[in-house]
Amino acid sequence: MNEVNRQWLLNSRPSGMVSEAHFKYLETDVPEPILADGEYLVRNLYLSFEPAMRGWMDDEPSYLPPVELGQVMRSTAVAQIVRSENPDFPEGQLVQGMFGWQDYALGSGRDDMFPANLIPEGVPPTLPLTIMGGTSLTAYFGLLHIGKPTPGETVLVSGAAGATGSVAAQIAKLKGCRVIGIAGGPTKCQWLLDELKLDHVIDYKNEEIGDRLSALCPEGINVFFDNVGGRTLEAGIDHIAQFGRIVLCGAISEYNNASPAPGPNNLMNLVKFSVRMEGFIMINYMDKIDQAFADLGQWLADGKLKWKEDIQQGFDHIPATFLRLFNGANEGKQLLKLADPR
Amino acid sequence: MNEVNRQWLLNSRPSGMVSEAHFKYLETDVPEPILADGEYLVRNLYLSFEPAMRGWMDDEPSYLPPVELGQVMRSTAVAQIVRSENPDFPEGQLVQGMFGWQDYALGSGRDDMFPANLIPEGVPPTLPLTIMGGTSLTAYFGLLHIGKPTPGETVLVSGAAGATGSVAAQIAKLKGCRVIGIAGGPTKCQWLLDELKLDHVIDYKNEEIGDRLSALCPEGINVFFDNVGGRTLEAGIDHIAQFGRIVLCGAISEYNNASPAPGPNNLMNLVKFSVRMEGFIMINYMDKIDQAFADLGQWLADGKLKWKEDIQQGFDHIPATFLRLFNGANEGKQLLKLADPR
Repeated sequence: MNEVNRQWLLNSRPSGMVSEAHFKYLETDVPEPILADGEYLVRNLYLSFEPAMRGWMDDEPSYLPPVELGQVMRSTAVAQIVRSENPDFPEGQLVQGMFGWQDYALGSGRDDMFPANLIPEGVPPTLPLTIMGGTSLTAYFGLLHIGKPTPGETVLVSGAAGATGSVAAQIAKLKGCRVIGIAGGPTKCQWLLDELKLDHVIDYKNEEIGDRLSALCPEGINVFFDNVGGRTLEAGIDHIAQFGRIVLCGAISEYNNASPAPGPNNLMNLVKFSVRMEGFIMINYMDKIDQAFADLGQWLADGKLKWKEDIQQGFDHIPATFLRLFNGANEGKQLLKLADPR
Repeated sequence: MNEVNRQWLLNSRPSGMVSEAHFKYLETDVPEPILADGEYLVRNLYLSFEPAMRGWMDDEPSYLPPVELGQVMRSTAVAQIVRSENPDFPEGQLVQGMFGWQDYALGSGRDDMFPANLIPEGVPPTLPLTIMGGTSLTAYFGLLHIGKPTPGETVLVSGAAGATGSVAAQIAKLKGCRVIGIAGGPTKCQWLLDELKLDHVIDYKNEEIGDRLSALCPEGINVFFDNVGGRTLEAGIDHIAQFGRIVLCGAISEYNNASPAPGPNNLMNLVKFSVRMEGFIMINYMDKIDQAFADLGQWLADGKLKWKEDIQQGFDHIPATFLRLFNGANEGKQLLKLADPR
């Protein structure tokens, strides 16, 4: 093995919108010497991109430590094991893990928060990054364990054409709810109506969210699964029903603010209408993951879940691909392909 | 009975700070003719004042309909029954109900949301408006059923010297928590330390809440019982711990804003740290009221609950007494005495 290990490092912390200039390209040696006991070497095949990665670039306390300057940018990936001193991770196997923006990464088999998972034979390599991956689990746990929708309730999903939102919206439909999706542009909105069979869509680029919610939700919103934050969150709170639940999954409209933007001015609605607003991260629910995979797998087998993969190409294109999340260019789950399995 | 019935009516809706000019004094006849079957006539003895009454003056949807212009201002009171065509409400008995800012009121025995309650013989007439009343129940349900503190956790209470906050803080102490109270001015803060035995106090009029929380809560706040909203809420969210709970009881800093003020700019902390923020009103928990009264009564009998009554006098002084809630003049539960029982 005499290739180089290409890497994208975090080079500076953004104040405001992230750009390619915040990352630095580097070529290093592939970790070549004899592996320590338990270690294994992987070659990345697909990188996964999520909005939450923007938060990892900030030097602020959060559920994960910040990526240090000069470190390889943290990222989930599907990889193939190419060397191993760990019998649980044999050579040739596909594995999902937090392998970062690089060609090759070392795994130890003992990552606590994000243990690497072997991918069973025959499973398409992108599946653990898309419909059977973290974004779907996030939608599943957030909607069912925090939102707790009941049949006939009205569920609003923002970022509804995104990887998480589209799954949350579909699970809400499977649970017998009336589902309204917010997305940007006619292509995404049409997909939500035609393929995901949502009841209504709001195109935030061409419609006033508040006006549409007034028309669509005279009885109020029972569950709001919010990926967007900011004005979108405020509009949802304006129309929340008594005993409504607001699932705070993320706030993509806020991640690139140079300074914190004012929050929703209508939190008194939470008091007036006895509303619960709750944030979460997927790993809180690891004890329930078997049931989640069982449900998702069943729905998948029954053809009841649809998704889109937006697969970019080229190592050089990694930072630019990340930026697609924040300008809304991605059509479905954002991935980048680095290599085919050998 | 040839007295007049003095009344204070809602005369105009405030835009911004409420003032005496928003109310109008009127003298009418005492409801004198033969009562309809089931009705009873009461004479008010004590009026109760709560910040939530400010919300009832706005023409906005809420958990109760707005007070109409020209109507008697809505208010809880303790009264004495002076005529009755209802065997359940005999003459001479003391009764608590939503009798409004007037000398005399008719009760029907069938108010749905706030049924009038007879006050048992021997109970001091102010007790159902103070420590054994709605403000204590609000503290009890909010802290225990939403905040759910466990022994050793850090509980922050804003408006801690108020009628609700002081009870929430004491219940948190009874549950084995470390309790920090926020109040305005040295007198209130000293009472919280000396009488209520809180662990720490923050005088928001003379100290920077955020700086004090940084010093007092390096591990974060587990439960924040918030009566204040605005910047106080934002400061609490800045220091919320993982899996923290924020009990939204009210937002007294916001009630008199002419236009909605920007909300907390740090709601992403709810996502990062998996925080639940939940609003409520006391009447959601009516099915648990027997247990609540049993617990409060036991603590009261054991001398474990302390409270202050701020009893103003004079019918003319009713609107001015209401304003005391919003300039922080009240020392404890705000009441106004109209008459002694006969």
